[in-house]
Amino acid sequence: MAAEALKCRECKTEYPLEAHYVCERCFGPLEVSYAHKPVTDVAEARRRIQAGPQSVWRYADFLPLAGGPPQVGLPAGCTPLIKADLLAERLGIKEVWVKNDTANPTHSFKDRVVSVATARARELGFEVLACASTGNLANAVAAQAAALGMESYVFIPANLEEQKILATGVYGTNVVAIHGNYDDVNRLCTEVSGEREGWAFVNVNMRPYYAEGSKTIAYEIAEQLGWETPDRIVSPIASGSLFTKIAKGFEEWLELGLITGSLPKMNGAQATGCSPVAQAYEAGHDVCRPVKPDTIAKSLAIGNPADGPYAVELARRSDGGVTAVTDDEIRAGIRLLAETTGIFTETAGGVTTAVLQKLAEQGEIGSDERVVIVITGDGLKTLDAVRDTFETHTIDPTFDAFEDAFAIGAAK
Amino acid sequence: MAAEALKCRECKTEYPLEAHYVCERCFGPLEVSYAHKPVTDVAEARRRIQAGPQSVWRYADFLPLAGGPPQVGLPAGCTPLIKADLLAERLGIKEVWVKNDTANPTHSFKDRVVSVATARARELGFEVLACASTGNLANAVAAQAAALGMESYVFIPANLEEQKILATGVYGTNVVAIHGNYDDVNRLCTEVSGEREGWAFVNVNMRPYYAEGSKTIAYEIAEQLGWETPDRIVSPIASGSLFTKIAKGFEEWLELGLITGSLPKMNGAQATGCSPVAQAYEAGHDVCRPVKPDTIAKSLAIGNPADGPYAVELARRSDGGVTAVTDDEIRAGIRLLAETTGIFTETAGGVTTAVLQKLAEQGEIGSDERVVIVITGDGLKTLDAVRDTFETHTIDPTFDAFEDAFAIGAAK
Ligand SMILES: Cc1ncc(COP(=O)(O)O)c(C=O)c1O
Ligand SMILES: Cc1ncc(COP(=O)(O)O)c(C=O)c1O
Ligand SMILES: [Zn+2]
Ligand SMILES: [Zn+2]
Repeated sequence: MAAEALKCRECKTEYPLEAHYVCERCFGPLEVSYAHKPVTDVAEARRRIQAGPQSVWRYADFLPLAGGPPQVGLPAGCTPLIKADLLAERLGIKEVWVKNDTANPTHSFKDRVVSVATARARELGFEVLACASTGNLANAVAAQAAALGMESYVFIPANLEEQKILATGVYGTNVVAIHGNYDDVNRLCTEVSGEREGWAFVNVNMRPYYAEGSKTIAYEIAEQLGWETPDRIVSPIASGSLFTKIAKGFEEWLELGLITGSLPKMNGAQATGCSPVAQAYEAGHDVCRPVKPDTIAKSLAIGNPADGPYAVELARRSDGGVTAVTDDEIRAGIRLLAETTGIFTETAGGVTTAVLQKLAEQGEIGSDERVVIVITGDGLKTLDAVRDTFETHTIDPTFDAFEDAFAIGAAK
Repeated sequence: MAAEALKCRECKTEYPLEAHYVCERCFGPLEVSYAHKPVTDVAEARRRIQAGPQSVWRYADFLPLAGGPPQVGLPAGCTPLIKADLLAERLGIKEVWVKNDTANPTHSFKDRVVSVATARARELGFEVLACASTGNLANAVAAQAAALGMESYVFIPANLEEQKILATGVYGTNVVAIHGNYDDVNRLCTEVSGEREGWAFVNVNMRPYYAEGSKTIAYEIAEQLGWETPDRIVSPIASGSLFTKIAKGFEEWLELGLITGSLPKMNGAQATGCSPVAQAYEAGHDVCRPVKPDTIAKSLAIGNPADGPYAVELARRSDGGVTAVTDDEIRAGIRLLAETTGIFTETAGGVTTAVLQKLAEQGEIGSDERVVIVITGDGLKTLDAVRDTFETHTIDPTFDAFEDAFAIGAAK
């Protein structure tokens, strides 16, 4: 494989490609580093990708697997990229595309990261999957474990949306609901991970592999745009992993000459009720001050984001930003996306759409820009956010009753 | 286009390709008939399909559109076909595949039928979309209308799952909830359709086009199996449209020589609480006696199925069958599919999986058969069916609390 080592983001110390996630020397996070052969025939390299499967495994050459693409497990990725002209028009911007990651097997982008972490975990001999989750990850881990016949444990905050709990428990996983918020869940999982050596916690001891899964969103966007980068990406931020790895994906392929363009402006999206990264960005700080989350965007409710500083740095370096929106703006964002694209997103996608709207209103988006928003999760998992936002007409089954209810404005 | 006319299934009278659905001479249902050019170069024809978009529009040559594939609207189809070895093993059968239509934009196969009906409706100049729905169709119509900026009216039984209502209303459609069951809804829509000439009711006046959308499931399965038919299909039946059109898809391509094999054995799946087709099949009748639905499989709760007789005839002719399962078997079917494949289906998919299980237990499935089950809808839309079917361990965020809860059987 092209992956060469795990490397500390801070001091660059290298480690073997095993279940490590933190530098023993400086406690910095580890990241997969690659030694790709230079691409000499770009057309051929692209054809090779296009001939691959309709899943993240078409990008196996760029992912940290020793063997080839796994033949088992739930396939993730290769989700639609949809041109959203009605949304663009409504916001007065030129070109908006929606990367619709609700099409994944458990309807969030987490199926990508779980695919990659699980594939590597199996290569390393792990037999139990686990995770610390704000909901979607638990869903994806439980599903992947079921598809592979593995045992699994998913740790979640006890106050999660019922939809996410039901859609996770159905797979026969061990649901561990914690009295506390995600940061409490994460702390406990770090501890359990130290004690259960046979367990692959996808976002703890397997985090470097997990994180690589998010790169595939960038690969797909570039491939779907005809091997070009867009001008701007708007993506939600919880821990900051997704946001920073999307950029890593573009950068890797730009460096290899596989795609044309340059790193898009990277705009992060957070909920005001949990916006440590947006606050650090606004204040000009390099690190994020932990917060206690209080927002309807529960999947983004990470008060102490592991990759926060890297997200801030990326937003600055790429001439993007990090923006926070209120719960009401999130609800309106969900409706805006639904009404203009037919895509029903969860609160996280409401955050993303509301941030796009805010950027448009503030005139931050250039008149000739091609913008891609990354819709990472599904509206069916956060139904409270849309309850009572529309009217239902309940009538008897007669034409008269219908005419009474819809007398005005009916096209005859 | 290759579509030539609408033709009465009974008396073969032909009509132009407009918004007709019932024969004026004999009241039989109309169906699209084609005059395909013979395929002289099979490899080339297959390549042409494969070079098409990742959606039902790759099959545009076989669909009733005058223009080419629409460039707008929510793309449906090209969903995964997943080899389900753990499920096969559990049931003691050789080879099972799952056609996972939950991957569609609104997470049911209805996005396919709505795509095709809507595309044709727009060619015919309609500006309002409408439907009579058991839930998923309303969802798909509302989403498609939003994506296209069209006005829409969706008629549903008032007692529908809340998930389906919320996931539909969010698109800004007109939700018309009817005191009554689907058959009442359908009757009202037939009446409204006669009064509102500018409205395209996708499954009333546009029904012949709508029905063609389901053929794409057969095309995809054959393409995904390497241009071969499987030995057996298990598919749910409500009105019987899906079931019969899957067979039409295989038959069309077999006749053109595009695929090898023969018509699969076609097994229909119904809920005991609404099984007019299964009852007719069992009793050896040609027509279905209407029933009053009472089942948790609300999306299949059509007591008076329009295509019921054709479904019975197909089950017999193909050496398949039509089987009914109880609500408890449906719940168990949902769990079985989730635990062995990682796919969370709604009650309709529970029906399908439970029927597969029953066929396996009854020894109906040959030892060398390749079976495909068609999973048509998503578990997130019928959460009541899984509530209280598993245990959640709620604990404090400490390692001791975790060890107490999971002392036994933990892999250390
Ligand atoms: C729907 C959704 N979007 C975005 C994110 C953000 O992920 P990250 O922690 O990589 O920033 C999450 C994380 O849980 C999520 O569930
Ligand atoms: C999930 C699901 N599966 C299957 C069906 C059956 O469709 P048909 O009416 O074509 O038999 C429906 C119809 O509403 C449905 O919603
Ligand atoms: Zn270090
Ligand atoms: Zn006739």
